[in-house]
Amino acid sequence: MNQKETPLFDALIEYGKKQIYSFHVPGHKDGVTFPERGEARFHEILKIDATEVHGLDDLYDPTDVILSAQELLSDLYKTKKSYFLVNGTTVGNLVMVLSACRPHDKVLVQRNSHKSIFNALKMARVNPVFIAPESGRSGIPIGIKRETVRDALEQHPDAKALILTYPNYYGMAKKDYEEIIRYAKEKGLLVLVDEAHGAHFIMGSPVPKSTLSMGADIVVQSAHKTLPAMTMGSYLHILSQRIDIEKVEEYLERLQTSSPSYPIMASLDLARAHLASIDREKLQSILKDIDAFKLGIMEKGFDCVEEDLADQDPFKVILRADGQGFHLQEALFSAGLYPEMADRDHVLLTLPIGGRFPVKEILPVFEKVFGHFNPNRLVEGVPYDLQSQPMTTPVISYEASERLEKELIPLQQAEGRIAAKMVIPYPPGVPLLLDGERITDDHLDHMKALLDAGARFHGLNGDHSLWVYKMNKTVM
Amino acid sequence: MNQKETPLFDALIEYGKKQIYSFHVPGHKDGVTFPERGEARFHEILKIDATEVHGLDDLYDPTDVILSAQELLSDLYKTKKSYFLVNGTTVGNLVMVLSACRPHDKVLVQRNSHKSIFNALKMARVNPVFIAPESGRSGIPIGIKRETVRDALEQHPDAKALILTYPNYYGMAKKDYEEIIRYAKEKGLLVLVDEAHGAHFIMGSPVPKSTLSMGADIVVQSAHKTLPAMTMGSYLHILSQRIDIEKVEEYLERLQTSSPSYPIMASLDLARAHLASIDREKLQSILKDIDAFKLGIMEKGFDCVEEDLADQDPFKVILRADGQGFHLQEALFSAGLYPEMADRDHVLLTLPIGGRFPVKEILPVFEKVFGHFNPNRLVEGVPYDLQSQPMTTPVISYEASERLEKELIPLQQAEGRIAAKMVIPYPPGVPLLLDGERITDDHLDHMKALLDAGARFHGLNGDHSLWVYKMNKTVM
Repeated sequence: MNQKETPLFDALIEYGKKQIYSFHVPGHKDGVTFPERGEARFHEILKIDATEVHGLDDLYDPTDVILSAQELLSDLYKTKKSYFLVNGTTVGNLVMVLSACRPHDKVLVQRNSHKSIFNALKMARVNPVFIAPESGRSGIPIGIKRETVRDALEQHPDAKALILTYPNYYGMAKKDYEEIIRYAKEKGLLVLVDEAHGAHFIMGSPVPKSTLSMGADIVVQSAHKTLPAMTMGSYLHILSQRIDIEKVEEYLERLQTSSPSYPIMASLDLARAHLASIDREKLQSILKDIDAFKLGIMEKGFDCVEEDLADQDPFKVILRADGQGFHLQEALFSAGLYPEMADRDHVLLTLPIGGRFPVKEILPVFEKVFGHFNPNRLVEGVPYDLQSQPMTTPVISYEASERLEKELIPLQQAEGRIAAKMVIPYPPGVPLLLDGERITDDHLDHMKALLDAGARFHGLNGDHSLWVYKMNKTVM
Repeated sequence: MNQKETPLFDALIEYGKKQIYSFHVPGHKDGVTFPERGEARFHEILKIDATEVHGLDDLYDPTDVILSAQELLSDLYKTKKSYFLVNGTTVGNLVMVLSACRPHDKVLVQRNSHKSIFNALKMARVNPVFIAPESGRSGIPIGIKRETVRDALEQHPDAKALILTYPNYYGMAKKDYEEIIRYAKEKGLLVLVDEAHGAHFIMGSPVPKSTLSMGADIVVQSAHKTLPAMTMGSYLHILSQRIDIEKVEEYLERLQTSSPSYPIMASLDLARAHLASIDREKLQSILKDIDAFKLGIMEKGFDCVEEDLADQDPFKVILRADGQGFHLQEALFSAGLYPEMADRDHVLLTLPIGGRFPVKEILPVFEKVFGHFNPNRLVEGVPYDLQSQPMTTPVISYEASERLEKELIPLQQAEGRIAAKMVIPYPPGVPLLLDGERITDDHLDHMKALLDAGARFHGLNGDHSLWVYKMNKTVM
């Protein structure tokens, strides 16, 4: 197949040439009805913000240009079948779990998954066993250990699926996932992977390897995170016969809008062609800029995190800012530099895969910000260690929880209660507290430390109250 | 509140001015990393395809510009609370039903609802009673009768909610919905409305009235269908204390991507300002063009459908093309005119609410196409009449259906079997067969007639096979 082709994008350009006037939705009529204030930004894109008219195919029953575009995607990523998603990796995670798991199935789930995985577990009404990840020297949870998977399968030989996240938010690709996947498959488990941050992991060394080539059964990737797709554009890949395609397509149609955005779909087509266009030589030249940037940062006295446990995505930089992560992020904002995220001890930057990257102009701005910081200052206290509980299960099942009443209580009264809503520091969107999890002193200490350091939360109200199940204590 | 303001769009313009270089997702880095082929169309919009960085608020925990934009929306539509949706009216319908209904609740549901409503019923595991709509002289299903609602409530006094669609796809706003809603509320039912095609129904006469002012509890509208929002942009409105806001927000966060599109959200902000800017005088001037267009069409010998039973949206034209709907649509395609949809006997055109509408240039193109047609030719046979079964319930419950196996069988063997997947002529996306419905000769005749006339289906394979439940006949 010719990976230079972009059949869906091309069809939209044709559509624009052929149509005299739009007598269909959307209401902006290819942009002729639009507030003047938005003209400059929206004018060109609205010309291709079309709908399922003649020649533009149908995402949920593709036979023409969308089919061709998805086949090119499948060809590049070497999958059995691949899909464009317009509701982000969120919908991919929901569909992956709902189509692969049945109610009451026991499933092993990486504890530091994105909230959408936990929402999927609840919707699928499965019985999860959470497996805690191992943290590195930096304190960042990297990924699960093969030993933990082995222990989990010895204790739960009836598990049906293993749900992994790879790489983590920081681009760390734990080295033993290939072995973990092989082991899980030997034991007959389905392997489902949230590879949101790894849509470019088919590029080859030094970019880490994708789980697509490690034997995963189904994989979701955010094309908008590392590739040049519009936000909300993601890919879903099916790798094995063990995935029920009929069910996948039923859930995709159910959970995504019946009016998918053509600009998002076209950007997924273009992003795939962009990735395909980067050969070894081009990759080397892109990495030269990236390396120059990293070197420049380090010369200013800031360390970048390197972990032995993982292969690291070269397109991510993790600045060490011990205890001052959120403050460094604020300082960068003020200077016109918007990082991807901060945690207490780090600031994460994502770097471009191709395109203009004016390293020499940008480095002096970092230097100016760095001047106000005392880098690599050691802080007291270790961040919350998820490995203290390597394997956990919810205190109450998802089905039981649906019948329970909830109440809002202050944080300081929460110890010992059962959380009724996830509490999620955002980003990265990995829940600190899960729905159905008993709240411990450890959780509360960690939450307070994050609040003190300046973190933002979903599921924790402005007055620091949170939702717990209302219940007779004797029930527990 | 000043309805001229567009706080979210303005913040995005500011963001573009402040940021030196993007060190965050999306991977296109404000457009600097993007395939050259897509440059012209995508360049400007990618500058505002941002993410939840400093100053851009958070859709799922809004405290700043998104909060202000949603408050302006609520102010204009006079609601208790209003939300921007980025996964279309589909997600609004799912959230509306899931948040208002509990498993096993009995709910009355308009039979000609969009498939997303039926998906929502299944996900919410409710017990639906389907109420058939009345068809008009044109054969188009218009809406339900007050008598049918009264009968349904006498037979099912334990019903908890009434789920309506208003107007229908053709812009027909059945006159007795105000009374139906009043009656249902007197009986204590929650009223949920899919008002996908009525986002502009607050404009005042001759535009029909919105259910927002008829006492509905919760309403979803597709801002992208009639207002100038980007495709996938919709509004969700809460009108009463009886809706659990906490639950609505939980489901919104669960079913929509955690990376919502800022261009879509900004277009929702701009579309609201656009609607607010149209006063009586401006509306009159817009309608002058619309009327000139309709008159022009009729002068060419084509009738437009008018129904006594409904107030009709002036921004829609329903061309009569008895028996030749799909063929007329094809002919219009070839001439560069893309209608919204066709059924066997009609072609539907949607017209612009403001903006450039070059009536004099367009009419001759219609005239040329019309020349090849014999308009208003009477056809034999009445289309499928849903009123033949005014009230129906699924043969098997949603919960039971989850445990059953499915099989694919040819259409000609389907009579008497139970459908395991909706069969949906598309557009309009209203299922002809529901999941759990017994397949009758009437269904099959109607399907064949539509296939002969050139309709497209979801849920019916290319070889005309469909999914039914595999079951021991004695079970039924």
